[in-house]
Amino acid sequence: MKVGFVGLGLMGRPMAGHVAKGGHSLHLWARRPESLAPFADSGATVHASIASMAREVDVLFSMVADAPDVEQVALGPQGVAEGAAGRTDLVFVDMSTIAPDAARNIAGQLAAKGVSMIDAPVSGGEVGAINATLTIMAGGTQDAFDRVLPLFQLMGKNVTRVGDSGAGQVAKACNQILTGVGVLALAEAFAFAEKSGVDAARVREALLGGFAYSRILENHGQRMLDRNFKPGFKSWMHQKDLRIVMNEAHRMGLALPSAAAAAQMLNAMVGQGLGEEDSIAVLKVLEDLGGVER
Amino acid sequence: MKVGFVGLGLMGRPMAGHVAKGGHSLHLWARRPESLAPFADSGATVHASIASMAREVDVLFSMVADAPDVEQVALGPQGVAEGAAGRTDLVFVDMSTIAPDAARNIAGQLAAKGVSMIDAPVSGGEVGAINATLTIMAGGTQDAFDRVLPLFQLMGKNVTRVGDSGAGQVAKACNQILTGVGVLALAEAFAFAEKSGVDAARVREALLGGFAYSRILENHGQRMLDRNFKPGFKSWMHQKDLRIVMNEAHRMGLALPSAAAAAQMLNAMVGQGLGEEDSIAVLKVLEDLGGVER
Repeated sequence: MKVGFVGLGLMGRPMAGHVAKGGHSLHLWARRPESLAPFADSGATVHASIASMAREVDVLFSMVADAPDVEQVALGPQGVAEGAAGRTDLVFVDMSTIAPDAARNIAGQLAAKGVSMIDAPVSGGEVGAINATLTIMAGGTQDAFDRVLPLFQLMGKNVTRVGDSGAGQVAKACNQILTGVGVLALAEAFAFAEKSGVDAARVREALLGGFAYSRILENHGQRMLDRNFKPGFKSWMHQKDLRIVMNEAHRMGLALPSAAAAAQMLNAMVGQGLGEEDSIAVLKVLEDLGGVER
Repeated sequence: MKVGFVGLGLMGRPMAGHVAKGGHSLHLWARRPESLAPFADSGATVHASIASMAREVDVLFSMVADAPDVEQVALGPQGVAEGAAGRTDLVFVDMSTIAPDAARNIAGQLAAKGVSMIDAPVSGGEVGAINATLTIMAGGTQDAFDRVLPLFQLMGKNVTRVGDSGAGQVAKACNQILTGVGVLALAEAFAFAEKSGVDAARVREALLGGFAYSRILENHGQRMLDRNFKPGFKSWMHQKDLRIVMNEAHRMGLALPSAAAAAQMLNAMVGQGLGEEDSIAVLKVLEDLGGVER
């Protein structure tokens, strides 16, 4: 297939690389020429605009920061819609994490111009992108999903079509609720143990075999014990994702008490200058708040 | 060994049974004679008082409701301390879930009378008690723990000495934070999916393979999808356990934002008459609050 890619950052670069290694013909456009440097010897075709790619490729991926960036790529001047004018077979796949409502809106406008859109946010972070072990949560028509599935399988291990447009973003929002609240609850449990004079490592061990088992207890728990707060997943990014969740909850009229607590703690972390650390650094905030001596 | 047991309820009955099946000589006392009926053919020795058992057995277990009951068993008239007068080799093992502070206090008073105490609350519920798959979290001296370990291994699968007196209760409190908040976060994620018009079953499937994996997502998630709110673990019991957590947090001066949210939702559940349902019924409360149509 001819595959286009926009957004060659920490995540997008290895993801595009896996597609090329999978034997597909890679097409690229980048705002900054230096983003293309890692692809100099890859045989990728470089385009002067997104529209130019959209005229030529079968599937066009984007992996950018937030909803306005996706809108720009999809609907802006020299963007996907403009380039795909007259075509009816292009699939645009946005793998960024944005609000479900924004994803549905963009998909609707693209559909009116004959372009199918899949929202397909991921979890697993940079490590998952590099090792092609991402979890990919997709929303869109079954037909468009089926056409893109072989490409998803080059980038990730767990690929699920969750439902129609926006459903991928909804699943990602659910993922961020579970991981954001899960990390906070674990930090609370560890702070509770420490303040009680009990070794959190022994508590983790005692709980791993029971119903409290989670990947978060196993992996993030060990990193908390090691005081290893390197990301992983940066606090300011989790803050952004929970902003999306809380805005959607506001829009829909839905009370999310534990997600709200997690969102507030992430606000405080960014306020304390911990935005570049992993979200497990919430443990330090709870320890400081509670006067836990270590 | 000669093993005494007080508290032959839903949990205690099968636990005592496993000890007897393990070849130990079972000694029983019960406030209500009908509690002894299931042991009629077991060859167990029935005593007229806890003190009478405490004079004769090597290890005496209790599995009762709350701290005042444990105090009564351990320190009350015709209780453990009275019966063990003059002895120095009795181990009293309380497997109830009570405040760490209360456990340490009772252990201190018993130690002054020559009785070793282990606090050893469990997780895994009635099913775990019946199948001898309980997780057992113990606090007390290494010596006393080692003497009781063969008996623990008849009742459970994951047996850990977490630390000194009270440490078992601290680990149990941590367990109840992780499970209480974990269930709430999952209910929030499912309500979010439902209100967004997305199938929660597909969301669960998409997330099972990633970092959001937990036993709660796998097991409680499936039960939420099946609308199976039968306990499992009753809401009023989880409410009680989070009261212990929040009281300890208050006593120690520790902020636990997500545990506080879970405790409040459990209060609301009991207020709404859902106390006898499983704590996953918090999904219904969130659905009602958010006007989620099903």
